[in-house]
Amino acid sequence: MLYVRHRTLLDQAAQHVRARDFWTPFPEAPSRQAYGDDAPGRGREAFERLSGRRFCVDEVPADDSAPAQAGDGTWLGGERSPFGRELGILYPARTVDGLVSAATRASPSWAGASVETRAGIAAEILLRLNAQSFLIAHATEHTTGQAFPMAFQAGGPHAQDRGLEAVAVSLSAMTQMAGEVLWEKPQGRSGNVLRLRKTFRIVPRGIGLVIGCATFPNWNGYPAIFADLVTGNAVIVKPHPGAILPLAITVRTGRAVLRENGFDPDVLQLAPDTVDAPITKALATRPEIGLVDFTGSPAFAGWLRDNVRQAALFTEEAGLNSIVIDSTDDFEGMCRNIAFSLSLYSGQMCTAPQNIFVPVGGVATNLGHRSAEQVEAALVEAVDALLADPERAAQVAGAIASEATLERVASARALGRILRDSRPIPGNGRTATPLILGVGLDSRDAFETERFGPISFVIRAPDTASAIAAAASGARRRGGITASLYTTDDGCAEVATDAFVRAGVALSINLTGGLFVNQSAAFSDFHASGANPAGNACLTDLAFVTSRFRIACVRGTLPRTDTTADPGRAA
Amino acid sequence: MLYVRHRTLLDQAAQHVRARDFWTPFPEAPSRQAYGDDAPGRGREAFERLSGRRFCVDEVPADDSAPAQAGDGTWLGGERSPFGRELGILYPARTVDGLVSAATRASPSWAGASVETRAGIAAEILLRLNAQSFLIAHATEHTTGQAFPMAFQAGGPHAQDRGLEAVAVSLSAMTQMAGEVLWEKPQGRSGNVLRLRKTFRIVPRGIGLVIGCATFPNWNGYPAIFADLVTGNAVIVKPHPGAILPLAITVRTGRAVLRENGFDPDVLQLAPDTVDAPITKALATRPEIGLVDFTGSPAFAGWLRDNVRQAALFTEEAGLNSIVIDSTDDFEGMCRNIAFSLSLYSGQMCTAPQNIFVPVGGVATNLGHRSAEQVEAALVEAVDALLADPERAAQVAGAIASEATLERVASARALGRILRDSRPIPGNGRTATPLILGVGLDSRDAFETERFGPISFVIRAPDTASAIAAAASGARRRGGITASLYTTDDGCAEVATDAFVRAGVALSINLTGGLFVNQSAAFSDFHASGANPAGNACLTDLAFVTSRFRIACVRGTLPRTDTTADPGRAA
Repeated sequence: MLYVRHRTLLDQAAQHVRARDFWTPFPEAPSRQAYGDDAPGRGREAFERLSGRRFCVDEVPADDSAPAQAGDGTWLGGERSPFGRELGILYPARTVDGLVSAATRASPSWAGASVETRAGIAAEILLRLNAQSFLIAHATEHTTGQAFPMAFQAGGPHAQDRGLEAVAVSLSAMTQMAGEVLWEKPQGRSGNVLRLRKTFRIVPRGIGLVIGCATFPNWNGYPAIFADLVTGNAVIVKPHPGAILPLAITVRTGRAVLRENGFDPDVLQLAPDTVDAPITKALATRPEIGLVDFTGSPAFAGWLRDNVRQAALFTEEAGLNSIVIDSTDDFEGMCRNIAFSLSLYSGQMCTAPQNIFVPVGGVATNLGHRSAEQVEAALVEAVDALLADPERAAQVAGAIASEATLERVASARALGRILRDSRPIPGNGRTATPLILGVGLDSRDAFETERFGPISFVIRAPDTASAIAAAASGARRRGGITASLYTTDDGCAEVATDAFVRAGVALSINLTGGLFVNQSAAFSDFHASGANPAGNACLTDLAFVTSRFRIACVRGTLPRTDTTADPGRAA
Repeated sequence: MLYVRHRTLLDQAAQHVRARDFWTPFPEAPSRQAYGDDAPGRGREAFERLSGRRFCVDEVPADDSAPAQAGDGTWLGGERSPFGRELGILYPARTVDGLVSAATRASPSWAGASVETRAGIAAEILLRLNAQSFLIAHATEHTTGQAFPMAFQAGGPHAQDRGLEAVAVSLSAMTQMAGEVLWEKPQGRSGNVLRLRKTFRIVPRGIGLVIGCATFPNWNGYPAIFADLVTGNAVIVKPHPGAILPLAITVRTGRAVLRENGFDPDVLQLAPDTVDAPITKALATRPEIGLVDFTGSPAFAGWLRDNVRQAALFTEEAGLNSIVIDSTDDFEGMCRNIAFSLSLYSGQMCTAPQNIFVPVGGVATNLGHRSAEQVEAALVEAVDALLADPERAAQVAGAIASEATLERVASARALGRILRDSRPIPGNGRTATPLILGVGLDSRDAFETERFGPISFVIRAPDTASAIAAAASGARRRGGITASLYTTDDGCAEVATDAFVRAGVALSINLTGGLFVNQSAAFSDFHASGANPAGNACLTDLAFVTSRFRIACVRGTLPRTDTTADPGRAA
């Protein structure tokens, strides 16, 4: 049984989820030491073999007992690498009816499996995905525009970490209350005892729909996919039309493991669609769908909120991430750190900073007082230095996932004084380096809207207190996932901590070295809080998993039967 | 500190919530042994002192540092005992604006308290409520119509159990992941380590609104009230206009404990209103409200679903509870048990059975085969026997909480063959004994609607399998909280178990003695599952508490300050 084989891994994951300390079973470096001498080559070859072909969601031929995801005969796809090449991959489409009926057919046996069986299968899927990390890296690179090293981490081991974290939290949530008990109630002084044998069975919520995003399809998709699976729900994965391949590889891997273990592979289905013929709305509103996870725009999230009434909805939307500069004892380290955060994947991370607040009177630093102008200039200089070498620039900034982001950069130029203009990176496809604009605290129309991509504002505030207040208030009202503070003053740190905590934002203080505000580590950092309009979901707190299942109690005086002794949550 | 004083109690509660075995710290019998010789007398006197008066929500005079719930000058109330007497109690009203601003003012210091501080205060409130159980029993009796023994249990110790259970589950959910950690990430072979000190702080969701019901104001209200409080949210309690007093006593008790411990008593407010001038809709849709808990009709729950978009909504609505009779080895015990379940509080329990399915060909019993007619007759006879003595009838059936229920009984007579007609219980106020109707499986219009009150159907089904299927299907589609099965056949029990578990219904098998399907024991039974239209909430699973708070992370390299060392979740 896979649970027994992976028990140590699952136990370790559970332990670190509680301790929140550093841990990962999946090496994050794309190294031959970790993944084998031939792993890079095999990954590249596998990617090339997929290109320009029909993608087989099932690697083995279908037979009656194990139906393959054959599709309804239509093949679709139109992914184009932000680095230039056409992927030319076609995926088998299924109708919304077909997807829902297949998931419905596959559900009972999956729901009837024990939580341990499901967790073992989930762990096996993750380990097999880990072994494919180089292939997944290429798939992620050429759909999202992430540079290869980042695509490896974010599409591979870091996403696998987040998936395993969701498995561990789900498993813990389902097993921390007893699965069965002999309930004995004494009857006062009579000495009599009333007895009931009770079993508590996990009831899945309904079919899970996971709607992928264009920039981090795996990283943002795995928590929901694996939480849904382990809590007993069949899952339909609807990727963004521009970033299907990473999730298609994921679904293919999951279906193989399901089939090998005697389950209907339609427990996990791929639901590709196109920009011209989207199926998300029709899928999300089907009564059979009990769970919807969405990463994307507040506009579509709002549509889902208004229209998906039958399912629990988990969202990650947009937000304003801020940096407040009060003072620093490492001015150059600070500027380098911020420059990297602005440049990494061209600001296309939901954790990337957009609004940098600087007191109009300048800041105290280890190099002496620096005026607001000097801070602006130093930040621009740090970005320029980071991206001076085109090859390094490409490795840091990657490419731009969507044409709309380029257009956003173009129109943003009018929103303030241009401190640093955005430029393409030669020879690297669709690119744009950071545009940095200078504005005042009164330019809320400019900086209190999320400008997704390499667009940031240096905002001159009257003082640190008003900067903190404006940044926290923006997050509270418009959403926010991260905030960053530079200060040498404990009192200032306390004020900022209180303000950002109340706004439900993860605050980082004085990052000057090799850690960046954009980074969120599984098993330790929570990603988003659910406490502001940046989304209602938090990766991965208990609330993210506990409403994906229900508990039904069976109580009686009958001798235990096989059914009640082997419930969906055998101890 | 109250947490230290009540730590054993809280630890025991946490332990039993996990073990699900029998436990209660609050004696359920209204006995002098448990509560003191003078407790019954003091309780009655206290109740009489409250009658015909203005109710002081704060027992001590207000001063500026501890604002009392003074009200806006309006006093309102119109409770009338279902046993006849006018209570004549007036409660201080506050405007919706006044309630929300007071809660907003009171929130920050409550949110800033540690989870242990909040749990200690919650436990203290529950213990003080327990000491007032006789007063609360009278208050519950004369608002809900429950007979005194039931009012004592359901308004007193059983409600207190449910409150403590919610405290324990909330405390566990907030503390099972570390509150702080030193995160150390090794940097490959360099030997370098990246370090971050992280603290994780609990962020309350927003003001909690708890909307009380007319039949079980405390029992259904305490889980939400105490879960909201312990997770750091201020709470506004909006009782049903017909059952204010039990919750008013609760709020008064809570405010006293809050004030004594240095908190603004407006952390917990009473929001009385009247049928003619209801305030629930205006309150529930205020942007400051982050949590709404509602027990009541699907119609109003639907309104809340459509209109409360800013808050998490927890509901308990209506449902069809079924009994399926397949076979029994204790025919008389079965009939007695069902008769009691139908008669207890005149069927005004959300767990009371309504639909009794009997195979048309009759059932095998220890007394030989019994035809469907014989089963019907035996059930009627058992109810008649139980209620033959008017005094005993009054103790079991109590009174009818609402005039509408009497009207429902009257109009229900046309829905089937009258097997047993409903009758008043002389001298006991507004009463109605069980109406039992005979129908066929095709009378779905009759029995697939919740007929709240002493109305039940004996439904002749072609066989046990179709009875189970119809009962489970009704619960899945129209809601259901409990189901009951009588069978001597393990295979039948398995089939029923699978069907009712899938429908998210708590199934009891072969209850013939002193345990009844209506009963739901805190720390062991889950009340409702959230898995069917009977409501989306489950008392008290993790999902009931985990979205009442959020987690915000603060990470940095700063030396720890007092703020980060004493977060809202100090270890």
